[in-house]
Amino acid sequence: MIHSPTDPIAALATPAASSALAVIRVSGQGSLEILSRLVAPPRSLAVLSGHTIHRRRIRDGVEDVDDVMIAVYRAPKSYTGEDGAEIFCHGSIPVIQRILSLLRRAGFREAGPGEFTERAFLNGRMDLTRAEAVNEIVRARTDRARGLALRRLSGAVEERARGARDALVDIRASLEASIDYPDDVPVGPMDGESLVRAKTLIDGLLRGYCQGRVYQEGASVAIAGATNAGKSRLFNALLGQDRAIVSDVHGTTRDWLESPLSIDGIPVRLFDTAGIRPSNDPLEAEGMRRTEEVVTGADLVLYLVDGTRGLADEDRRVMDSWAGRTVLLAAWNKTDLGDCHPAPDGFLPLSAATGEGIPSLLARIGAAVLGSSPSDTTEPLICSDRQRDLLQRARAAIGRYEVARDGGVTPDLLAVDVAEALDALGEMTGEVTTDEILERMFSRFCVGK
Amino acid sequence: MIHSPTDPIAALATPAASSALAVIRVSGQGSLEILSRLVAPPRSLAVLSGHTIHRRRIRDGVEDVDDVMIAVYRAPKSYTGEDGAEIFCHGSIPVIQRILSLLRRAGFREAGPGEFTERAFLNGRMDLTRAEAVNEIVRARTDRARGLALRRLSGAVEERARGARDALVDIRASLEASIDYPDDVPVGPMDGESLVRAKTLIDGLLRGYCQGRVYQEGASVAIAGATNAGKSRLFNALLGQDRAIVSDVHGTTRDWLESPLSIDGIPVRLFDTAGIRPSNDPLEAEGMRRTEEVVTGADLVLYLVDGTRGLADEDRRVMDSWAGRTVLLAAWNKTDLGDCHPAPDGFLPLSAATGEGIPSLLARIGAAVLGSSPSDTTEPLICSDRQRDLLQRARAAIGRYEVARDGGVTPDLLAVDVAEALDALGEMTGEVTTDEILERMFSRFCVGK
Repeated sequence: MIHSPTDPIAALATPAASSALAVIRVSGQGSLEILSRLVAPPRSLAVLSGHTIHRRRIRDGVEDVDDVMIAVYRAPKSYTGEDGAEIFCHGSIPVIQRILSLLRRAGFREAGPGEFTERAFLNGRMDLTRAEAVNEIVRARTDRARGLALRRLSGAVEERARGARDALVDIRASLEASIDYPDDVPVGPMDGESLVRAKTLIDGLLRGYCQGRVYQEGASVAIAGATNAGKSRLFNALLGQDRAIVSDVHGTTRDWLESPLSIDGIPVRLFDTAGIRPSNDPLEAEGMRRTEEVVTGADLVLYLVDGTRGLADEDRRVMDSWAGRTVLLAAWNKTDLGDCHPAPDGFLPLSAATGEGIPSLLARIGAAVLGSSPSDTTEPLICSDRQRDLLQRARAAIGRYEVARDGGVTPDLLAVDVAEALDALGEMTGEVTTDEILERMFSRFCVGK
Repeated sequence: MIHSPTDPIAALATPAASSALAVIRVSGQGSLEILSRLVAPPRSLAVLSGHTIHRRRIRDGVEDVDDVMIAVYRAPKSYTGEDGAEIFCHGSIPVIQRILSLLRRAGFREAGPGEFTERAFLNGRMDLTRAEAVNEIVRARTDRARGLALRRLSGAVEERARGARDALVDIRASLEASIDYPDDVPVGPMDGESLVRAKTLIDGLLRGYCQGRVYQEGASVAIAGATNAGKSRLFNALLGQDRAIVSDVHGTTRDWLESPLSIDGIPVRLFDTAGIRPSNDPLEAEGMRRTEEVVTGADLVLYLVDGTRGLADEDRRVMDSWAGRTVLLAAWNKTDLGDCHPAPDGFLPLSAATGEGIPSLLARIGAAVLGSSPSDTTEPLICSDRQRDLLQRARAAIGRYEVARDGGVTPDLLAVDVAEALDALGEMTGEVTTDEILERMFSRFCVGK
């Protein structure tokens, strides 16, 4: 995608589903003039004040498409910094499709993911960490994720990145002084406080990454195990609904099933899968092949064993083969039955039939996907891979700087490492950037933002 | 639900799904004052002009909830006719949930389905047929349904209902004249033209009902038949995706699957079901029990027979048992195979494997769910059961009037039938109405409209 930074763009900003209202956004040079040609009564929208709302009828030639309200925004006081509008139409799929198709034919380009926010960044309306937070708050699936994202949107990450950058600028200044006046300015002692400040700020942001990411992105959890271990019954019990057929027959589940679930504010996609057993039946084999696919894509696999049957060699073989690929949590089902063996070490005892052990299971799933690092509530938990990579790059450069400085390397060479760290932090906020970086970043956004 | 017609109400007007934007609507007495207490900076929204947009931060006590834009509307120039606002927040579920919960705690009642439009009706902003069209355009799933609903929203149904009403008022006037002056005014000849006009308008609206309803509501179509008839292969072929496991093994599909599909502008929900065969296997029996449930709920059942196997007694028995319950379409699969028998009368030959016969199948499904009545494009196809019932009531009263008049019944008794027809048409547009009627009608709306 080659971005022309001012051409007229359009996109649906609300979900493509039926509801009371839908919002279609347009922005760019000439956007109000083009839109004016598609509405009745045929008065120009381009002469109206910004932040005002007007009732219009959208027309496709002689055919009426919908009765709408249009909010007009004027540059530079708009989200993108450009002239633009929001069309509030009836929230039906065919209405949305007709208006979008009409806008395309009239000269609007379909906006790429995040293109409205990219323009906001290019027009100086926000830095890159806030731009990413826009996407993160939209994608937040729990209240905790929302709070974390709003904190980042308010500039908490930008503030720390700029703080670390300022500290490194101090160090660079002292290096430059000792390059210019080698006899007067010693290097070592000058960087102490600034270096600690930079490292503290960067390490603080990095520490929060894992948890920030899980709260933001969620986790997929697959229930797997031998046939008849009680997977479908556990699936239904966790969801609290009769979704999957449950029976004592081996290999009941064939097509995998999926359902969403929230565990302690962590958004989880739960999968029920076909059971694993040695079989020459091509149909069962196909079900198992699909189970392997689900397991490969899962963040955590809940391996369920029938406690009345005990741990079979096949269970051990399968668990071993999956252990390297995914996080494995082992559970021992059917504790309610008299002939259930005691759960071996490392297996969580539970009964999908009675619900016993399920609260512990949920807690274990939550802890396993969050990881063990304790949450530091004073830090804005970042969840962007881009930001983490840049922070790690900055941190590595600082590490190299420290080693080199202690090894007596000359100030001009030390300055290279500091410059590298400064670059990484500058890229984080967008002070240093390229088209490629922007394209990669905004491509992860939803369309309409 | 007891409606207080002016208290402050709030509802999400966009789908509860993640996207760039969500819109939360509020309306009612004091709504702007209450909302003002929840935003920063803490300036009153109730002093602002209508149809203007303002940037604010929503706050829950000391905690920031989201950065939003707020559109202010002032009575009486608003959708509901009351003071109100639209909050444009980030389109994430937790943001939406927090704002809705905050509004509830601040004194907004959660709006009932259609309550905003009900207030628009009560405040004289639209008649009932247009109010219903608001809901119909929102729920339209194809462009044809959108066009039909917009036509109704523009008043095409109201116009015809009022036309029929005017014609009946003429008849009532002539009846009253002959009651008051029995010797001077004859009854029979006076009603001719008016009666034809009323019947033509009512019959025109009634004729369009069936098709209007199918385009609006869509249809559910279940693929059923004996095991191994090729149901899952046909399901995948119609969807154009590899959704269901396909194999030659009898009884491959156990849990039923569902997927949406559009057939010639008709929104269809397509179901694949477990195959029917005599079996003592409890698991297969459970799958078949669920098939029966799906068949019972379907508008049309596509009964598929394996043409290489031919029509079995079991097929006939199952088809007979379903024939009374649902519309049955019979198809003859596997025409691509050499040992396929010729399709018997009434069976559509096709091959799910090669796609042969599938266009004919789609056309047959479309025709079957639309019914045989040809579409009259000059009429606004109604789709409301309420409107159809009232039109039928009006039509029946007119029929009784004609019989009575031809039987020489006195004008005062004839007037009773005319009054009944007028009442039904008045109820259709809302000139005659009760709380119960309104409640029943608006309860079918989506929330936020």
